[in-house]
Amino acid sequence: MSRPKSRAAAFQGARGAFSEEAARKLLGQGVEVLPCERFEDVFRSLKEGRAEGAVVPIENTLAGSVHENYDHLLNFELPIVAETSVRIVHNLIARKDVHFPEIKRVFSHPVALNQCLDFFSRNPQIERIPFYDTAGSVKMIVEEGLTDAGAIASSVAAEIYGGRILRKSIESDRQNFTRFFLLRRPEYARRHPVPAGAHVHWKTSLVFSTRNIPGALFRALSAFALRDLNLTKIESRPLRGRPWEYLFYLDFLGRADTPNAKNALNHLREIADILRVLGCYPRGA
Amino acid sequence: MSRPKSRAAAFQGARGAFSEEAARKLLGQGVEVLPCERFEDVFRSLKEGRAEGAVVPIENTLAGSVHENYDHLLNFELPIVAETSVRIVHNLIARKDVHFPEIKRVFSHPVALNQCLDFFSRNPQIERIPFYDTAGSVKMIVEEGLTDAGAIASSVAAEIYGGRILRKSIESDRQNFTRFFLLRRPEYARRHPVPAGAHVHWKTSLVFSTRNIPGALFRALSAFALRDLNLTKIESRPLRGRPWEYLFYLDFLGRADTPNAKNALNHLREIADILRVLGCYPRGA
Repeated sequence: MSRPKSRAAAFQGARGAFSEEAARKLLGQGVEVLPCERFEDVFRSLKEGRAEGAVVPIENTLAGSVHENYDHLLNFELPIVAETSVRIVHNLIARKDVHFPEIKRVFSHPVALNQCLDFFSRNPQIERIPFYDTAGSVKMIVEEGLTDAGAIASSVAAEIYGGRILRKSIESDRQNFTRFFLLRRPEYARRHPVPAGAHVHWKTSLVFSTRNIPGALFRALSAFALRDLNLTKIESRPLRGRPWEYLFYLDFLGRADTPNAKNALNHLREIADILRVLGCYPRGA
Repeated sequence: MSRPKSRAAAFQGARGAFSEEAARKLLGQGVEVLPCERFEDVFRSLKEGRAEGAVVPIENTLAGSVHENYDHLLNFELPIVAETSVRIVHNLIARKDVHFPEIKRVFSHPVALNQCLDFFSRNPQIERIPFYDTAGSVKMIVEEGLTDAGAIASSVAAEIYGGRILRKSIESDRQNFTRFFLLRRPEYARRHPVPAGAHVHWKTSLVFSTRNIPGALFRALSAFALRDLNLTKIESRPLRGRPWEYLFYLDFLGRADTPNAKNALNHLREIADILRVLGCYPRGA
């Protein structure tokens, strides 16, 4: 008997995607999951109660911030309650009865194929074939019974679809990490507050906008610097169609409900046109 | 007779990729191009003289900054001499004798397919098939003579491979722009300086690092704020393995060789551990 879908964590991608790995890290191995086609569907599933949590990537060490998800955070107003970071490890996976010398072609998402170019240079006999997603390529080769083919995906995908890992960690760059947020509905976050003392380190994420007059950001940051609040992220994003206005993403160390942070946020409100706290959560590993 | 390869502009991707569109915008429609498999190959081609210019994406309005190319900018020390912004327009392209009602399947890079989900929702009879890249999918359907298939790619790809655009601009989000840099070898940039008076607006791009003591960034930005220099980009990037150190990407309006900007850079040097000016170039449209 499966539990009702509303207990599930929504994520974008197929079963076994790296977002599912993040969901398991955040919510435990046994978490029920709700795979969605688009990021917008992930937010909508949580908002409308088809899921109890949502796990979304927010930045990657090679590819940068996922602006689309910042937009959804602003639009859906679903608070961040936790963060985690997942190392993107690409594995060569095949059916359980297939051995490495038999592999003639490898299926995966083109981004994953491109992140394994050193492996393909060392193995020129293997053809690269683009597929819709990493985990889905494992499902396909297993279900179709392909005996000359492999797929590149996470170890979770190998486990879910009954594949075998032939080569671990074949990505060219090991410094490939994605940071994920866990979101809840506002009511849930209010009913289940994490006690302030339970974690030493907290982070608060916020978005604010300023008009780009010289020094506007400088004055905005003074709200934190004057109170010895340490930033862990700052990023500007031009507002399209408003060439002199900017949106800023900012994370600082600390809880938003301490007197010091409250003063900083009040100070920032004097300077910023828009200010939205996206969430306050224990700092991830 | 083609000109020698060393006159070419290198870019990552197949002929007709959006980077080629950027290369044409930056260097004229007739520019000779050198497609490369990886970003690293693009930088190497320029460094080693197989190309005279390199065109690389640096940030996208939905997907964020391309950290990989910032790393290559730091490692290869090839100066930025121009910038441009290209709107990512996805077109449905087919062979010239094929009409829209005949289309049963559409090939493209999964990222492009995913950016056209509204089109596929409106046309559920059409199957989506992942392909290695956008432009390459046009080449394939034309060369293979497929009469029930389309591809999603740039208009440049339709032109290069002799396809016909059946539906223009089928992307769900029109606010999809990529910013590109044009790079040259340092000698070339020195021999062909753009005169200071030729453009009203200049931008300077730089990278610097600070130790993350509270207020370090605030002090770094004071170098610009105290001199009324306007920032157009600021972005932090944690240095992996050094959890308390950060790299910052910063663009400011102005030429690096004016007295005011020189003072700001000298001031910043007092505060930053590393400071590298990546280039100074006329502001793009």
